Amino acid sequence: MTVSEQYFPQEPTAPKVVTSTIPGPESQRKIKELGQVFDERHAYFVADYTKSTGNYIVDVDGNVLLDVYAQIASIPLGYNNPALREVAKSDRMIRAIIDRPAQGNFPGADLAEIAGDVLKAAPKGQKFLWSGLCGADANELAFKAAFMYYQSQKRGYNAEFSKDEQTSVMANEAPGAPELAILSFENAFHGRLFASASVTRSKPIHKLDLPAFKWPKAQFPAYQYPLGDHEDANKKEDARCLAIVEDIFQNWHAPIAGVIIEPIQSEGGDNHASASFFQGLRDITLKYKSLLIIDEVQTGVGATGAFWGHEKFNLSPAADIVTFSKKFQSAGYFYNNPQITPNQPYRQFNTWCGDPARMILAGAIAKEIVKNDLVRKTSDVGDYLYAELAKLAAKYPKDMQNLRGEKCATFIAWTLESGAKRNQFLADMKMAGVNIGGCAEASVRLRPTLTFEEKHADILVKAIDAVLSKK
Amino acid sequence: MTVSEQYFPQEPTAPKVVTSTIPGPESQRKIKELGQVFDERHAYFVADYTKSTGNYIVDVDGNVLLDVYAQIASIPLGYNNPALREVAKSDRMIRAIIDRPAQGNFPGADLAEIAGDVLKAAPKGQKFLWSGLCGADANELAFKAAFMYYQSQKRGYNAEFSKDEQTSVMANEAPGAPELAILSFENAFHGRLFASASVTRSKPIHKLDLPAFKWPKAQFPAYQYPLGDHEDANKKEDARCLAIVEDIFQNWHAPIAGVIIEPIQSEGGDNHASASFFQGLRDITLKYKSLLIIDEVQTGVGATGAFWGHEKFNLSPAADIVTFSKKFQSAGYFYNNPQITPNQPYRQFNTWCGDPARMILAGAIAKEIVKNDLVRKTSDVGDYLYAELAKLAAKYPKDMQNLRGEKCATFIAWTLESGAKRNQFLADMKMAGVNIGGCAEASVRLRPTLTFEEKHADILVKAIDAVLSKK
Repeated sequence: MTVSEQYFPQEPTAPKVVTSTIPGPESQRKIKELGQVFDERHAYFVADYTKSTGNYIVDVDGNVLLDVYAQIASIPLGYNNPALREVAKSDRMIRAIIDRPAQGNFPGADLAEIAGDVLKAAPKGQKFLWSGLCGADANELAFKAAFMYYQSQKRGYNAEFSKDEQTSVMANEAPGAPELAILSFENAFHGRLFASASVTRSKPIHKLDLPAFKWPKAQFPAYQYPLGDHEDANKKEDARCLAIVEDIFQNWHAPIAGVIIEPIQSEGGDNHASASFFQGLRDITLKYKSLLIIDEVQTGVGATGAFWGHEKFNLSPAADIVTFSKKFQSAGYFYNNPQITPNQPYRQFNTWCGDPARMILAGAIAKEIVKNDLVRKTSDVGDYLYAELAKLAAKYPKDMQNLRGEKCATFIAWTLESGAKRNQFLADMKMAGVNIGGCAEASVRLRPTLTFEEKHADILVKAIDAVLSKK
Repeated sequence: MTVSEQYFPQEPTAPKVVTSTIPGPESQRKIKELGQVFDERHAYFVADYTKSTGNYIVDVDGNVLLDVYAQIASIPLGYNNPALREVAKSDRMIRAIIDRPAQGNFPGADLAEIAGDVLKAAPKGQKFLWSGLCGADANELAFKAAFMYYQSQKRGYNAEFSKDEQTSVMANEAPGAPELAILSFENAFHGRLFASASVTRSKPIHKLDLPAFKWPKAQFPAYQYPLGDHEDANKKEDARCLAIVEDIFQNWHAPIAGVIIEPIQSEGGDNHASASFFQGLRDITLKYKSLLIIDEVQTGVGATGAFWGHEKFNLSPAADIVTFSKKFQSAGYFYNNPQITPNQPYRQFNTWCGDPARMILAGAIAKEIVKNDLVRKTSDVGDYLYAELAKLAAKYPKDMQNLRGEKCATFIAWTLESGAKRNQFLADMKMAGVNIGGCAEASVRLRPTLTFEEKHADILVKAIDAVLSKK
């Protein structure tokens, strides 16, 4: 029996589409009802989570869709996973829900264990945890840590704040509120609060009308594919992009306290870069005493063939901060240098300091992944799927351009001729029984759960073939 | 039977302190253990939430403390509340935990009902909800809404973005990333992410080393007490502070898209302002077409004698945006003008758009409060408590200066002679069996749950008397 058969004995064996449109009539009625109280315009359909199982999401019209988008890459182990259901029913979880502590001030007796379970899954070399609530929060907490660290290196870790710092900060002025920057990359996505939106460089709609910090952006390598045929050109592209980073470090009007980067740019189009590019970036951050922050919000938790996407780069020394959210259900950052803990309490602090309910779930997710060897299995399924998709890409070269994600498990994407054609493809795929997502202007991204297996891959490939053959 | 007796038949009848220090030896051991993985320096003691009940928090050494701090004002209905326990065990909650949707894209069939239950408790005049995850997040989401609204008023709600806006925003430059500001008040606390820290004006430690937006601050009225004896002086103070606000609107280098204010400044020292000050502020925001954002993170959900602290001001027209978190366990903002919903989808958006588990809990909390008439009851208990504390303040004028919160239910505070004396008082109170919190430099704030009754008030008053009489 496969893992998905063990978890989900009742999982459907195929999609079933029963309405002539998606959203169907009942979804449409419910979306309208939702609009009375909540911004409903983003809803593709209304889901019935009581009936969704494993890799299949069921909507309120009874449509049963194979789900390779999985709540924007955030369902780790399939819908209604029985192992997680047990955890959700546990007394520990119930208490975490109803007696939510201010975890900094009044930690529960089991917080060390709960945090320890999350940390067991940390990337190699990471020793500490700080908890947040979502990806944007995790990244901004990491920026706080980076700015405090940068200033503490200048001032001396245990030095007192000057009077001038303490006065000026209350007026939002330097030196207490210093002019410092976080460097990010073109097409990056790191969230949509204000500091996170300032480093997000994906699309105007993600940040229009928001005041922003004047922080710099570098260029993320744009490779020629297939990679094997363009090694020289791609090496030059790495060097070109690293030179831009170095130039910014030397010439930006404010010091760069940290560099944030995704192992694979996800919202921005599934853009990959080489291990040597990442090592080059690590070297530059060391040279300029800036922190390297790896944003694993979308790539983390087994989706790319390693538990954490950047582990394949074998960075030396390890990244300074690694942020997470989505598939881990809990959010926050890992780090290894004790001096990244601010020199005084109440600097990195807030009422809840994370959510124990979501941290308990993260620990349980990590355990299930290890127990069932799901990183390796997802990697194998991804290899199988990639090979099948490569055949389709040969058959439909215009509709499956630039297939990427080889040897990255199921973290696979390709590009269509235009945004309009991509959107039509996503809609057609729903009618063919597959819930699938896009990224960037004209790309499709696969983000199934870690219980996605060859039989699911076969259904997906068949549906893509059917949709593209009709065009 | 009182409500607390109905909820908590096993609630202790008195505190019990069994160790010679708090934290006791077992707390100390566990704090050290926690320090291996998590920043443990903020921990007062380690709690045993399995044993905590109603208004009593129990620590791992077996100390039983009356809790009038309640997780920094965030436990609404007492520890291990049986009504919330039933909700936590429900199948709906279990699904919200394990099948957490991207609520914008794939709302569950019950989202309209879940959001509707939260909205039922909205302040008068508020019709819509947007969900976030904590207080800082709620405020920053509100700022996003305010900035988008401000620009849309200038541009026309349905107008297209210009090419220049779309290009400049990707470089974090105007006009796409405009120079706009949020006005806040001295001593305000609105959170510790970057935009929220920029409007937080409580203490340097809350924001040192963070780059900040150059946003203005006005002055919050500083009244003379007792209020009844200083009506003229306090009216002048209102006028003085409103004139500062108006001056900033006229002279600040960037337009003020919104004003954020707490009904009672909480972290900043429980500073009160009059209904006419708030109405004056409402008038100025209308005059300058700026949004009035009321931050009810700490004052909301029944603690001040109304469900929402600002309802007592009878603002006309109603506030534009009201943010919430803490006692509601869920976070976000309410609003009433449909044009505060951005003109296009994917502008106010993120993966999760809130947490249905926490939203379900918020709805249940609101229902219990209404069913048990807890706003009125807490208001009555507060009147009783305030009268008792006023007697103590007469007895200990140096240690209970500036008693405030009359007719504000249990939302009561006073000031000691110095920060050192306040800190000693808080520590002594723990040894006398009461977990109690501070605010500002030298103040004490009461933040019990809504199940705090006269019998608990008697214990609190007796403990304060005992501690102060020994000084």
